[in-house]
Amino acid sequence: MSIPTTQHAVVFETNGGPLEYKQIAVPTPKPNELLINVKYSGVCHTDLHAWKGDWPLPTKLPLVGGHEGAGVVVAMGSNVQGWEIGDYAGIKWLNGSCMNCDFCERTFEPNCEKADLSGYTHDGSFQQYATADAVQAAKIPKGTDLAHVAPILCAGVTVYKALKTAKLSAGQWVALSGAGGGLGSLAIQYAKAMGYRVVAIDGGEEKGEFVKSLGAEVYVDFTKSKDIVGEIRKATGGGVHGAINVSVSEAAIDQSVQYTRSCGTVVLVGLPAGAKVTAGVFDAVVRSITIAGSYVGNRADTSEAIDFFARGLIQCRIKVVGLSELPSIYTLMEEGKILGRYVVDTSK
Amino acid sequence: MSIPTTQHAVVFETNGGPLEYKQIAVPTPKPNELLINVKYSGVCHTDLHAWKGDWPLPTKLPLVGGHEGAGVVVAMGSNVQGWEIGDYAGIKWLNGSCMNCDFCERTFEPNCEKADLSGYTHDGSFQQYATADAVQAAKIPKGTDLAHVAPILCAGVTVYKALKTAKLSAGQWVALSGAGGGLGSLAIQYAKAMGYRVVAIDGGEEKGEFVKSLGAEVYVDFTKSKDIVGEIRKATGGGVHGAINVSVSEAAIDQSVQYTRSCGTVVLVGLPAGAKVTAGVFDAVVRSITIAGSYVGNRADTSEAIDFFARGLIQCRIKVVGLSELPSIYTLMEEGKILGRYVVDTSK
Amino acid sequence: MSIPTTQHAVVFETNGGPLEYKQIAVPTPKPNELLINVKYSGVCHTDLHAWKGDWPLPTKLPLVGGHEGAGVVVAMGSNVQGWEIGDYAGIKWLNGSCMNCDFCERTFEPNCEKADLSGYTHDGSFQQYATADAVQAAKIPKGTDLAHVAPILCAGVTVYKALKTAKLSAGQWVALSGAGGGLGSLAIQYAKAMGYRVVAIDGGEEKGEFVKSLGAEVYVDFTKSKDIVGEIRKATGGGVHGAINVSVSEAAIDQSVQYTRSCGTVVLVGLPAGAKVTAGVFDAVVRSITIAGSYVGNRADTSEAIDFFARGLIQCRIKVVGLSELPSIYTLMEEGKILGRYVVDTSK
Amino acid sequence: MSIPTTQHAVVFETNGGPLEYKQIAVPTPKPNELLINVKYSGVCHTDLHAWKGDWPLPTKLPLVGGHEGAGVVVAMGSNVQGWEIGDYAGIKWLNGSCMNCDFCERTFEPNCEKADLSGYTHDGSFQQYATADAVQAAKIPKGTDLAHVAPILCAGVTVYKALKTAKLSAGQWVALSGAGGGLGSLAIQYAKAMGYRVVAIDGGEEKGEFVKSLGAEVYVDFTKSKDIVGEIRKATGGGVHGAINVSVSEAAIDQSVQYTRSCGTVVLVGLPAGAKVTAGVFDAVVRSITIAGSYVGNRADTSEAIDFFARGLIQCRIKVVGLSELPSIYTLMEEGKILGRYVVDTSK
Repeated sequence: MSIPTTQHAVVFETNGGPLEYKQIAVPTPKPNELLINVKYSGVCHTDLHAWKGDWPLPTKLPLVGGHEGAGVVVAMGSNVQGWEIGDYAGIKWLNGSCMNCDFCERTFEPNCEKADLSGYTHDGSFQQYATADAVQAAKIPKGTDLAHVAPILCAGVTVYKALKTAKLSAGQWVALSGAGGGLGSLAIQYAKAMGYRVVAIDGGEEKGEFVKSLGAEVYVDFTKSKDIVGEIRKATGGGVHGAINVSVSEAAIDQSVQYTRSCGTVVLVGLPAGAKVTAGVFDAVVRSITIAGSYVGNRADTSEAIDFFARGLIQCRIKVVGLSELPSIYTLMEEGKILGRYVVDTSK
Repeated sequence: MSIPTTQHAVVFETNGGPLEYKQIAVPTPKPNELLINVKYSGVCHTDLHAWKGDWPLPTKLPLVGGHEGAGVVVAMGSNVQGWEIGDYAGIKWLNGSCMNCDFCERTFEPNCEKADLSGYTHDGSFQQYATADAVQAAKIPKGTDLAHVAPILCAGVTVYKALKTAKLSAGQWVALSGAGGGLGSLAIQYAKAMGYRVVAIDGGEEKGEFVKSLGAEVYVDFTKSKDIVGEIRKATGGGVHGAINVSVSEAAIDQSVQYTRSCGTVVLVGLPAGAKVTAGVFDAVVRSITIAGSYVGNRADTSEAIDFFARGLIQCRIKVVGLSELPSIYTLMEEGKILGRYVVDTSK
Repeated sequence: MSIPTTQHAVVFETNGGPLEYKQIAVPTPKPNELLINVKYSGVCHTDLHAWKGDWPLPTKLPLVGGHEGAGVVVAMGSNVQGWEIGDYAGIKWLNGSCMNCDFCERTFEPNCEKADLSGYTHDGSFQQYATADAVQAAKIPKGTDLAHVAPILCAGVTVYKALKTAKLSAGQWVALSGAGGGLGSLAIQYAKAMGYRVVAIDGGEEKGEFVKSLGAEVYVDFTKSKDIVGEIRKATGGGVHGAINVSVSEAAIDQSVQYTRSCGTVVLVGLPAGAKVTAGVFDAVVRSITIAGSYVGNRADTSEAIDFFARGLIQCRIKVVGLSELPSIYTLMEEGKILGRYVVDTSK
Repeated sequence: MSIPTTQHAVVFETNGGPLEYKQIAVPTPKPNELLINVKYSGVCHTDLHAWKGDWPLPTKLPLVGGHEGAGVVVAMGSNVQGWEIGDYAGIKWLNGSCMNCDFCERTFEPNCEKADLSGYTHDGSFQQYATADAVQAAKIPKGTDLAHVAPILCAGVTVYKALKTAKLSAGQWVALSGAGGGLGSLAIQYAKAMGYRVVAIDGGEEKGEFVKSLGAEVYVDFTKSKDIVGEIRKATGGGVHGAINVSVSEAAIDQSVQYTRSCGTVVLVGLPAGAKVTAGVFDAVVRSITIAGSYVGNRADTSEAIDFFARGLIQCRIKVVGLSELPSIYTLMEEGKILGRYVVDTSK
């Protein structure tokens, strides 16, 4: 496989500065890295934050964003194990970690203090050739549709991890707020594949039909319900066993504590800047409620999330456009006009 | 063993009404109940709430309070299994539950909707002869000091359960706020018996010496520390794995989220009326923090907590007074003048 | 509801003696018991052992057998909680236990030393009116088909419990030996409902088609395979994560250790008299294999197994005959001529 | 720090061939490796197997054995993270693994198919300067006694892992067969630090006094006991919750299944060539016994085992001799004359 010396990428020099689609050098993998010919990359809200630089953690500059890249291994460093040229590989949020701190030793590598983040502290997937740590890069089975698997690498893994964090058993109820959105619709499908019963919360009839088509048993329309908590408690015989707050309003989070049954778990997964979760201590104690923050998946979560996708159990609705059009997607995002998941084709 | 027909008890007819030390009839056990000759009973803050009636749940009236009773089985109903006359038995907060709902089936019987509460919805241990459900009554090994084991039945079990709720492994760090108080000092000892390393938080030098004598490795004096969070993070190499909020101030709870390391667990165990726990969603998610409410122990928790005590690993400082003096203890409680744990001797 | 004083039952006076279909008195429930009007009862191999008396544990005599009874509550003792007249109820192997020993406290009530067994130490479901401990009796949702749910009460719960014992996650592989039989076919369906991927092992093409129709992804025909272990390892990318030995040959058990991948679990669930499980220590250690015995389900397992059935996820093929024909079913069993699950209608 | 080009080592060219103490080249670390100046190394029975080549897996040849090395980092490859020159580091059985297979992703890295083994497939700690994968190398706190910590790196971690595999709670009983030996005496101390109650099984009065001095509550002398199973069941109120078979006789393993209480766990940890574990299926099922193979610890197990040692909770009795005397230690091992743990000083 011949590897070019230059490639197309979208780069910015300063946070909030121009997003330039241009030729840059193809990077050289370090001894522990793969060089991946990225074919497709999903576009995530986090990419917008990286560009704007409005999170506490500073980004690398200049930066190539992107952390949902799916492609093919074209080269690798001298120390790489377990990979072959031609393998399908994915670039995900956690590019690498130290692998020998307390967190890494216990598979909490996203919590490693030295976490290196794709499209944030390490050039990401909005380029044709990206380097990725061979330990953290995602293994994608040959034959997988690379455009459709791209959003699984962050969006899919994140909701799958949140579901695991709820520690449910097959047959138990899980409520998903924002169930009709991008993350939510993936969450419904993962929940079904894990044997859970889904209460989907969203607004409007169209969303209702959509979430039921994906397998939700109960739909609660917040635009119509006069008592969301009561409705959910009734439909589930006392409340759900777990609640995943895909949507990020404080009011929704507070409600989720109420419609979760005693001894159940409320999972926080979104990252609303400045939002607080507040719970009455008396109620939390007497009802033995657990509130758990869920960040991103580790290597095993990623493999599992991809495996469910590869087996055809997870459908992901995407719109594919050329990489050169990325700046206009950022504009749509800023305007809140994004519907569905955009995936960029790096060859265009 | 001859059972009298009347006995001494402290009874009140109305919430907040007179606490009368008087003769009442000895109750007859139902088919599933034991009749226990209560020798000693601990006095808990909850007893004050039951008397005042200031919690949302109404009490039985007239009521005999008390839910830390230790005594001897003197009679039993026709369906009782696993007990013999002369066995030592304990009366605890959960007198009985349905045993066949979803919660009971999974050992979450304190969360049963039909939970019957000693000294609240069922006459409790402030009398010489009390009935207790044979399934929930605590088994106390023969030879145990009944005065000293009494507070274990609620205070001891509660902190032991809170420690279990933190899901720690031996060798990990646990912070205990209010470590020098009655619950806190029990918590230190249980934590040590479970192999945990203890950070004790309280105020003043005397408390510091006391908690270290019980096995705390680190003492943080909130009256002197200028940076409790920083101090704890430094002493524990990045924060504790679990935090038990025995004390109940909102500020202390918020702080506990900060000094707990990523992937750690903050346990809420006290019942401050109206208090809220508030956590930043961003921080909770990125650091994967879990906040868990812990109520009271189930049958297994109770057996285990008593077993640690019976093996001599838990010391409990008590003051023994006659049952007839109970009203004056309530007065001290109301005035916030209680130091240590009071235990009443029902024979006086 | 009027309750008769006499009823039809199948009774034997001595182990191996005549099985008499005759009129006996309707029993009176104790304070903790339900009286259930049994409509249907499954017939299990254990019933044959109880009649013959060839197990180490002696049976009650005279005895009414049966421990898969489904019916309606018609009366109850004074201490019963959580039940109403007219509720659907199930009689299962564990009729009752002490509920306050170490095992019962931890939901291991089938392991209680005082376990009372339906159709063995307590008159069972081969009669029209049977008593059952209200704590252990199975709750069956109104509207459930009582004939079809009957075998769930023992066969269904047993395989469901065995699957839980394997501690698998959704998406992992489980091998079921004897997958085409009565227990095996239930196991396939429970495994699918829990999100597992099934390797079914049995003999013949007909069985192969049957197990695939129930959801098995891989079928291994032991009458044709020349290398069962190699075949399973290949189909599953290295071996199954869990293996359930529904069938009970020693050779099959030994093989299951081989086709389970490292860190996986082999579950023993059948009760072959005198069989041994043998594993190489070196292999078990280096591959970190776990071999776990699984007995019968507890209350929670039973509720869950029934819930999956009630939701339509589990189909059970049964043949319904009159209770009066029970002796001929025993004869078929002894001759090894039983195909499918027999259910007796107690009204005939 | 100046690194010499040659060093002393014990090398053999063929399995079973001469063990030569001689000068060899100091190796150069690969990008992912540390170069460790080994100060001390424990000598383990496995080293004898590596030399003889009598295990199924072939060794590297020529080979420097040893996998309990404690020393100081003197150089490192370009990709190493989380280490500094001068750090204390340990060489353990698992030198490295792929870190991206199913096993590695789930912290089962000792089960990785590409596991690289110190002193077996990778030159080990019987030399003054050894290379070690930076991810797997053990972190040892500054100030730790390097001679005494050496045996913790294999013997200590192995018994600690076995104890974790038993999944016990503080306050439960664990039986240790061979408790008075090298592994056993470490196991007693780890068990105590984890809050377990220890039944020590060994032979003779001297061993009895020794194991009690380490914290065993019950001593069973197999040279005197007429009913080991009965004795243990009685002392522990029904049998131990977990049993660790440090010793490796088949008879002892079979017995351990008997003296473990229902729902308990029997752990296999030794590697007796050709030994079988045999259990009655009926008993294993009805008593819900689990038999679990435990191999060596992963990174987290190693850190934890070292932490208990560093805190002074684990004493290890060693004899220190010069590295040049290693061949005579092998001779003693072959003759079965080893008492206690030998540690070699690589400077002599």
